[in-house]
Amino acid sequence: MLPFARVAIVGLGLIGSSIARGVRAAMPTVRLTGYDADLDVRATAERIELVDDVADTPGAAVIDADLVIFCIPVGAMGAAAAELAHDLPADAIVSDVGSCKAEVARALREALPAATIVPAHPVAGTEQSGPEAGFASLFHHRWCIVTPLADSPGAAVERVAEFWRRLGAQVELMAPEHHDRVLAVTSHLPHLIAYTIVGTASDLEEVTRSEVIKYSAGGFRDFTRIAASDPTMWRDVFLTNREAVLEMLQRFSEDLSHLSRAIRWGKGDELFDLFTRTRAVRRSIVEQGQDSAAADFGRAHD
Amino acid sequence: MLPFARVAIVGLGLIGSSIARGVRAAMPTVRLTGYDADLDVRATAERIELVDDVADTPGAAVIDADLVIFCIPVGAMGAAAAELAHDLPADAIVSDVGSCKAEVARALREALPAATIVPAHPVAGTEQSGPEAGFASLFHHRWCIVTPLADSPGAAVERVAEFWRRLGAQVELMAPEHHDRVLAVTSHLPHLIAYTIVGTASDLEEVTRSEVIKYSAGGFRDFTRIAASDPTMWRDVFLTNREAVLEMLQRFSEDLSHLSRAIRWGKGDELFDLFTRTRAVRRSIVEQGQDSAAADFGRAHD
Repeated sequence: MLPFARVAIVGLGLIGSSIARGVRAAMPTVRLTGYDADLDVRATAERIELVDDVADTPGAAVIDADLVIFCIPVGAMGAAAAELAHDLPADAIVSDVGSCKAEVARALREALPAATIVPAHPVAGTEQSGPEAGFASLFHHRWCIVTPLADSPGAAVERVAEFWRRLGAQVELMAPEHHDRVLAVTSHLPHLIAYTIVGTASDLEEVTRSEVIKYSAGGFRDFTRIAASDPTMWRDVFLTNREAVLEMLQRFSEDLSHLSRAIRWGKGDELFDLFTRTRAVRRSIVEQGQDSAAADFGRAHD
Repeated sequence: MLPFARVAIVGLGLIGSSIARGVRAAMPTVRLTGYDADLDVRATAERIELVDDVADTPGAAVIDADLVIFCIPVGAMGAAAAELAHDLPADAIVSDVGSCKAEVARALREALPAATIVPAHPVAGTEQSGPEAGFASLFHHRWCIVTPLADSPGAAVERVAEFWRRLGAQVELMAPEHHDRVLAVTSHLPHLIAYTIVGTASDLEEVTRSEVIKYSAGGFRDFTRIAASDPTMWRDVFLTNREAVLEMLQRFSEDLSHLSRAIRWGKGDELFDLFTRTRAVRRSIVEQGQDSAAADFGRAHD
């Protein structure tokens, strides 16, 4: 039995449109509605027939839904939920895909005091944005972390979990606060660092921007992919998961100072030991199917 | 006319073996000899018939060569050059592929006072190592930076440049010191940061190693690729290009502190502006053919 029959997607960007495509592929009988605050995005969604019905208001999108998923920047969740509160069916389950769970749960609960809320976070994405960037297999073999609230009924949690399994994801349950600390290190800190280094490189005076771009294959280009991620989404993530991000950043800075000192004082053994340890982490990620074993991410060489 | 007829490759790892394969593909009449200090690597090179002759000593590898290329960690160049000094033909051109040019040029000149030396650096690679990791197209459409010494004859520089063009690279000439500053930012700093963050993540107590690996698709996994690069090679790079690396690191740390402060004080506009700027850098890299336009590096999604 399908976990849901009528799914409303609020926010039709990379993730929302990937969910829509995934539902079409894996649960073709589900009736899909969608809404996006951006008129151009709605027009594109209509044109590419992303969902059965693109609504002109969030209320119209959800009025008949049994699952409503917010796929918008985490800073916009509360206001978006408040906007459709009056049209939300009493038995609908409300979920989201935000990268910060504690604050989003709080915002959703405040906007929808009586709703059944089961937040979730599919750990998947690309650096591209918009309704045309999504694809059905984005969640295959990726983890989706479901972070129930204290009052989320077990049956509702299971339905959301099953929804994500149908989209190809593996599901894990986690407390929102722990999620926010795990993601601070596996996702938020890497993005912050990538944005920073790309900014540093493009601000140099003696090394020109054109040199930075020409010789980026030496490593820099890997960082630019992440640093091309959606600016609004990531601004919101850092401001929302502020404490955990700043704490991880502090640890990173300490480690960087330590390494910097090892370089200054020529401590080759310390460098070698760290570099051997980090190589093993990569091996684990590949072994556990979280990245390709192919060299250079399998980038095409010719 | 071929730029060289008898090429000796000293060091048969990723880069050396890629050069061997590239020569076979693009200049099949060239006679190729090779040497590696590691007996196992020599045995593998024999088995896979990487070159025409795997020599048992560096001297035997170069005795008849008109081009000798050192493809070994930058800290090992001086000693390796000294070891074959007596067997180096007087008219051979000596080159290398090291990631730091000023110090390597100094070490090669000291070991080989009378030789014609034309250092070069192909800005290409993968995170894998060893003679079986190489492939002929590694240098296609990549840049190779040739950094002549004050006494490098123009004709020798042109032959080395032509050699790299035949391997598919685009060639640029640069002063060694400028090279070292450009690469400090486009290659050395990114590696240093990737090694650091992978170390930071694997040292956390409350977030387990297994969680870091499971949820690495949120961004972290991109860094682990670079942090899986050869430990000896990179230890040598940081110790050799120490001053430039430490200076770039200092700039990066300042920028990171600035961003950290913006997060702490909720300055969303500053974050948004930076993230918009960095997105444009990515666009330039893709436009200039230095990375794939495909989402997520073109990683296979199913």
